[in-house]
Amino acid sequence: MFAKRVDKVAPFRVMAVLERAKQLQSEGRDILHMEVGEPDFPTIQPIIDAGIDSLARQQTGYTQALGLPELRRAIAVYYQERYGVTLSENRVVVTSGASAALMLMSALLVDPGKGLLMADPGYPCNSQFLRIVEGQAHKVAVGADRGFQINGELINQHWRDNTIGVLAASPANPTGEILSLAALQDISAAVKAKNGVLVVDEIYQGLSYGEDCHSILEVDDDAYVINSFSKYFGMTGWRIGWMVVPEKAVVGLERLVQNLYISTSVTAQYGALAALDLINRPMLEARRKEFGVRREVLLNGLKALGFRVDYTPKGAYYIYANIEHFLKKGGWADSEAFCFDVLEKYGVALTPGTDFDEHSGAYHVRFAYTLPVEKLKDALARLKVAVDTL
Amino acid sequence: MFAKRVDKVAPFRVMAVLERAKQLQSEGRDILHMEVGEPDFPTIQPIIDAGIDSLARQQTGYTQALGLPELRRAIAVYYQERYGVTLSENRVVVTSGASAALMLMSALLVDPGKGLLMADPGYPCNSQFLRIVEGQAHKVAVGADRGFQINGELINQHWRDNTIGVLAASPANPTGEILSLAALQDISAAVKAKNGVLVVDEIYQGLSYGEDCHSILEVDDDAYVINSFSKYFGMTGWRIGWMVVPEKAVVGLERLVQNLYISTSVTAQYGALAALDLINRPMLEARRKEFGVRREVLLNGLKALGFRVDYTPKGAYYIYANIEHFLKKGGWADSEAFCFDVLEKYGVALTPGTDFDEHSGAYHVRFAYTLPVEKLKDALARLKVAVDTL
Repeated sequence: MFAKRVDKVAPFRVMAVLERAKQLQSEGRDILHMEVGEPDFPTIQPIIDAGIDSLARQQTGYTQALGLPELRRAIAVYYQERYGVTLSENRVVVTSGASAALMLMSALLVDPGKGLLMADPGYPCNSQFLRIVEGQAHKVAVGADRGFQINGELINQHWRDNTIGVLAASPANPTGEILSLAALQDISAAVKAKNGVLVVDEIYQGLSYGEDCHSILEVDDDAYVINSFSKYFGMTGWRIGWMVVPEKAVVGLERLVQNLYISTSVTAQYGALAALDLINRPMLEARRKEFGVRREVLLNGLKALGFRVDYTPKGAYYIYANIEHFLKKGGWADSEAFCFDVLEKYGVALTPGTDFDEHSGAYHVRFAYTLPVEKLKDALARLKVAVDTL
Repeated sequence: MFAKRVDKVAPFRVMAVLERAKQLQSEGRDILHMEVGEPDFPTIQPIIDAGIDSLARQQTGYTQALGLPELRRAIAVYYQERYGVTLSENRVVVTSGASAALMLMSALLVDPGKGLLMADPGYPCNSQFLRIVEGQAHKVAVGADRGFQINGELINQHWRDNTIGVLAASPANPTGEILSLAALQDISAAVKAKNGVLVVDEIYQGLSYGEDCHSILEVDDDAYVINSFSKYFGMTGWRIGWMVVPEKAVVGLERLVQNLYISTSVTAQYGALAALDLINRPMLEARRKEFGVRREVLLNGLKALGFRVDYTPKGAYYIYANIEHFLKKGGWADSEAFCFDVLEKYGVALTPGTDFDEHSGAYHVRFAYTLPVEKLKDALARLKVAVDTL
């Protein structure tokens, strides 16, 4: 009755957790939400003001398919300013969130039966975008020992006859791991040796603590970049992101955007212009620093409680913890059982690793530090009780 | 290098017209744009105000994947109020424009190698959404004699082994033709007899002149409806539309939306709530009436000039005219040559039928009356010179 692909689109396990959390809240329970992949701050005021201003100026029509020229230019300038990369604005494509960028990338690059190599764990929707175009996600199991990232050696090992390229992510979801410049170079060289295509999800770019994020564009001009105004710029609900693509891809992409999206929200585009205005950078940086403080609190707290975080998550706002030993002690079947029990008994909502991770998700959980420090401390205190009673 | 589907995504021919029009404008020429499928009015002020208000209230986060509950409810109520159809709000899915609705419909219903029957001429992107999922558009050539619409008899004649359903449109683009209640019943019965699925594009619903629009939901509860806030409600650049689907489809659709879109622009959703507020209906109706006046002027004017409009377009804001006799007289190869020449010599920009129409687009052009009456009269005067010199 429905297309076969629909059954293969797995529901997010976290949705069941969220459902139960809401139920408990409606019964008066105090629930700490550490499952949400969205900043808890509203968009900064100057971006809001720019959106309001554009509406007041009656900017309500379609824009160019590839985005407002001034926004494409501002994004190109951002790469110059932040990463020292000189970029033609023609290579910038404004999209309806990174979601649209991932869809367009799949449609542009992936024929039916062909696939992209990617790290497992990773962003779960990547597989679904590929499935829509009858392509495949070629998952490569990576653990904390490899920083949960793919590399040149793994690309060589796992490249199949029907592999056409690699989708890497930095900072990565759910692990917060960052690819260094050397790691990006290593991946780029391996992909080039295979005559493949390299796509890098830089959606969490800018949200790093200690180590700076790099862009693949610093080392590889042929790569496809997926980015977003949702995370560092805090514009989730506006639905706006972008791609940087090789010049040769622009014509095909423009046709795809015209057909599949027409254009991106004009209000969001004017908001994004303000997001890139350097005068507003300090507000964004203050938020990044706040995430950094939270990360310290949560990382140290979880380690002290015995959660195994055998790597140092350097970006995004996630910590991916191994709970295998807790599962054994407590008699939980897997991370989903653990998440439901911790929610039920202690009112802490977490995301089971199974949402991100085919090979080790059953014994991992993702913590999001999209909560103020005080609430994180409350959550740690509750988890301490949970762990102490094991 | 790129996926095979990319080459099959034809560029819109009108883009080349538009490109040349802009060039001429930059040289100081006065160009009348009758090629644009977007209302020339900005969004009405109460909708703008609602968007501004939501931003001022810092509503900037993701919403539920299927849309704000109050918006889904308001859409359900709209069907009750306008079409006498009682509808559970659970069956309403808010989407990032009708574009997203068409993509979701294709992903939900169409397996690779399967196809939907649809009228040729029609909205060109429909084929592309199907192509993305490796499905097919099964085009049925229809002319003015059939009101450019598909019907039960044609469905029976053209149904193939790999046809799974029908995509109809009312009011239709590029012809402005409306399906009467009897015509909708006829189509529905034919599809049901084939155990097929019926999708109706009601994107231009509400924009009709003389004859009221009907919704397929008045006669068929199992149909899939694609709709938009872009046209009647004048919210093109906001990127918001909706679907009404059978209850059984909601779970699968929710997963698809979560993966492919996350959610629809929150600002657009608050704007859409105001769009549905009955207090604002008179402003929307005033615009509809203005379109109605323009239609009269343009339709009578074109007929007087000898353009063949062998049917009465009743909705949307388009007139699809047969120019075969003009092509012969003037020695133009096809509608594209005609459009370029009329643009060059008389400064009137039209859309060649080839953008919509595989079988007769070469000798049709689409006029959009998204211009004030005075400008329409100017365009008619210029076209008179063109025709008189033949």
